[in-house]
Amino acid sequence: MSSAKGTAETGPWDRVYRHIDANFPAHVAQFQEFVQQKSVSPLNQGMEECARLVARYLREMGCQTVETVPTAGYPIVYGEYDGGNPFTWIIYLMYDTQPVEGETWTVPPFEARIVDRPGFGRTLIGRGAINSKGPMSAFLNAMRSIREVEGKIPVNLLIIAEGEEEMGSRSLPKFVEQYRSRLAKADTVFMPLPAMDERGLTKVFLGVKGLAYLELECSGKLWGRGPTDHDIHSSSKTIVDSPVWRMIKALSTMVSEDGNEILIDGFYDEVLPPGAKDRRLLDELITTFHPSQMRIEIGEVDQFIGGTSNMRALLERYLYQTTLNIDGIWGGYIYPGSKTVLPHKVQVKIDVRLVPDQDCDKQVERIRRHLDQHGYSDIAVRKLHGYPWAKTDPDSPICRAHVKALESFGYPVEVWPHAPGTGPWYLFTDPPLSLPCVIGGLGVGGRAHAPDEYFVIEGEPGVSGFAESEKSYVRTVYEYLRLAGDRKGV
Amino acid sequence: MSSAKGTAETGPWDRVYRHIDANFPAHVAQFQEFVQQKSVSPLNQGMEECARLVARYLREMGCQTVETVPTAGYPIVYGEYDGGNPFTWIIYLMYDTQPVEGETWTVPPFEARIVDRPGFGRTLIGRGAINSKGPMSAFLNAMRSIREVEGKIPVNLLIIAEGEEEMGSRSLPKFVEQYRSRLAKADTVFMPLPAMDERGLTKVFLGVKGLAYLELECSGKLWGRGPTDHDIHSSSKTIVDSPVWRMIKALSTMVSEDGNEILIDGFYDEVLPPGAKDRRLLDELITTFHPSQMRIEIGEVDQFIGGTSNMRALLERYLYQTTLNIDGIWGGYIYPGSKTVLPHKVQVKIDVRLVPDQDCDKQVERIRRHLDQHGYSDIAVRKLHGYPWAKTDPDSPICRAHVKALESFGYPVEVWPHAPGTGPWYLFTDPPLSLPCVIGGLGVGGRAHAPDEYFVIEGEPGVSGFAESEKSYVRTVYEYLRLAGDRKGV
Repeated sequence: MSSAKGTAETGPWDRVYRHIDANFPAHVAQFQEFVQQKSVSPLNQGMEECARLVARYLREMGCQTVETVPTAGYPIVYGEYDGGNPFTWIIYLMYDTQPVEGETWTVPPFEARIVDRPGFGRTLIGRGAINSKGPMSAFLNAMRSIREVEGKIPVNLLIIAEGEEEMGSRSLPKFVEQYRSRLAKADTVFMPLPAMDERGLTKVFLGVKGLAYLELECSGKLWGRGPTDHDIHSSSKTIVDSPVWRMIKALSTMVSEDGNEILIDGFYDEVLPPGAKDRRLLDELITTFHPSQMRIEIGEVDQFIGGTSNMRALLERYLYQTTLNIDGIWGGYIYPGSKTVLPHKVQVKIDVRLVPDQDCDKQVERIRRHLDQHGYSDIAVRKLHGYPWAKTDPDSPICRAHVKALESFGYPVEVWPHAPGTGPWYLFTDPPLSLPCVIGGLGVGGRAHAPDEYFVIEGEPGVSGFAESEKSYVRTVYEYLRLAGDRKGV
Repeated sequence: MSSAKGTAETGPWDRVYRHIDANFPAHVAQFQEFVQQKSVSPLNQGMEECARLVARYLREMGCQTVETVPTAGYPIVYGEYDGGNPFTWIIYLMYDTQPVEGETWTVPPFEARIVDRPGFGRTLIGRGAINSKGPMSAFLNAMRSIREVEGKIPVNLLIIAEGEEEMGSRSLPKFVEQYRSRLAKADTVFMPLPAMDERGLTKVFLGVKGLAYLELECSGKLWGRGPTDHDIHSSSKTIVDSPVWRMIKALSTMVSEDGNEILIDGFYDEVLPPGAKDRRLLDELITTFHPSQMRIEIGEVDQFIGGTSNMRALLERYLYQTTLNIDGIWGGYIYPGSKTVLPHKVQVKIDVRLVPDQDCDKQVERIRRHLDQHGYSDIAVRKLHGYPWAKTDPDSPICRAHVKALESFGYPVEVWPHAPGTGPWYLFTDPPLSLPCVIGGLGVGGRAHAPDEYFVIEGEPGVSGFAESEKSYVRTVYEYLRLAGDRKGV
């Protein structure tokens, strides 16, 4: 196994690595227990129970203070570990997951079964495996292992585990506001979330896109035409209007023929090209970037928009383009067989990924205005949630320390200017906290938000398993102290 | 109650009417039992059990032969009553219903609860109440009552009760073919299905439209672009195509901005204006026709296409126009809350109502060709079922007899050249059987294919209840014998 590579340079981490190896079965069992405890926030499945479990994990890790903070939604589990250290990290975690409804899994999604997957090795399959129970479990095990071996963890930790990430982190802003004086002590923010491909290439993300999540509704009631109260017999279609056809016509005005260019006035106005630091990162990134790497991440896709002949263009589109994606559409009779009805209502879920320098509310307002200008002012637009993008300086100590930690295991590292996905990191990177925030770790996982979500427990040669994932967090702490310690003069 | 009006002219029916009144509670109880036995063919709920119940009803009515005929789908229950009479009727019945999935009912849909509804009277609410368990129950009770009072029913009956009407009567053509020699003895076809409005105005239908029921599917697998296997994380939308947007663009090409004009080449080519006999019926019909009458039938609709200033135009559009209706559309995440996925598939259910002289397969082929010509040859078009329209001569004895029977109760009668809905009557009206086929009866019901489907048990003054519904079938038999008997010279 490649973990041997981590021993090239010796240090206090070696004792912790051995402890992790010795306790590996117990650590995997805890990860399984975590997945087995459902915590599907959009459908309110198992949330309170999972919050209790997370509080236990934080206490076991060594937090002297653990609070289960009530919110308007699901509780935020907050833990403080004070080792009397000069540096303090905020650790951002999420304990909620996406639903499995409508997905077809090859194993039960909440059993946390470990199977042998050719090309991957021993792999845990379950909802939340990579997003984000595996990474969270690995991180907490890593910190606990340091404490158990060394007596204390050499950085102070302010751990925030929220239960509403998959619902747009609705309660997190208020929490960050309430706990601001405590959080202000922090030097940096870290989120454990590995992104390693099958070649062992691992990604570090220095930011995220923003998000706007909307629901659109066209109904006879709102429109004043068509069936106003319930689906009616479709023989009336000759003389009664259809809200479904109306929605299709309205949606159709929003994108180009191929569905990829957004035709909403001003939608791209604030989209910025990559800046100087981003371009430097991209120059490096393009030397290792390959679509096969994305394929494993995003599932089976035969062809990418624009093709793969110009890789730089593909990469830049991936990172610097906004989207208008239909996440779901439903109306009328959607069960097997036939039912002849004229539906009274159709609903659409849409997400918009926001890139610098786009603003969430401005984009929502543009969608509203587009509908109004095209004569669809009756179509309801409801913003479910949304937040801005966030970016961190690649020269920040946490970034440099984390890259060094990952490289110590012998894996190639890519530093991405930001992720194609989203997260509520603006709460930390924007004023008043204005902290650097990095997302990373070793480990192979995938199919987030999709069936058969997985995290590799023991990988094939050349890729990381769960133990090495834990070790990468251990090493990051020590590399940070070496780097940042110099700066702070301790 | 208005049933007294039926006694203006005395006849053998009077004894049967009294018998019906005396046995009213038992008749209603049987209707309730029938609704309580689920028989949702599209979802295969309770079909075998309901077929057994129907066979019992046919035996209790007096059929000497009852067969439960197996088909590729659900059994057809076939009963023969031979009274040694000169005339033989085919009675077309259906024992299956639409699903209730996705509907919101104010009472449990399979409880057959009888409630007091202001403006309607005592009303049975339940799936199948009007479509078509109430009418079927009333008809069988009527015939049984004649037999119990008079010793025999004065017409021979060939009763066909199918369980696949809501799935397009797939097995009925083969059955009619197999039983052709027996069915060829028939003089006429009748289907009990009342359509009375709140003014007591009652409709007789001399035909039906045809139907094509389709499913369209756009998927990454068929397209070769977009996610090919499962929904993927929507952060990939920047570089991965969306089958949902593709479907929306494709659908959008099919209809005009308002969703009401079909833009598929040749779609209207065979649509005929009303012929001479139809125009005569329309001239009469327009004197009583009123949109309020349709409103009660089709549910809550505030505005009709084209408005109500030109009633004749509204009526002709209702009857002589074809449709391209979206019955249902679904893809991606369709549950509460948010999930950020790029769906790999979207499906659409479409029904087309066919008017003279349109052909089912020709219209399906035109939809296929439209998609091909617009570059959407990857979008799958699956025909689930379909059949032609059917029409009967208003001068046929069964029509004249039935109208006379209804009028004997003092209600105004409208004779409609055909219904806006569909049914498999072409099997009887087209060669080789070439029989007249009429749809009617007294009784108030509505919300077919919709929540809170109902049938009035005891109506407010001026409209018919369940007892009078039964009596209308009794009277139709006797009026037919008076009229047709003259012709056949018996």
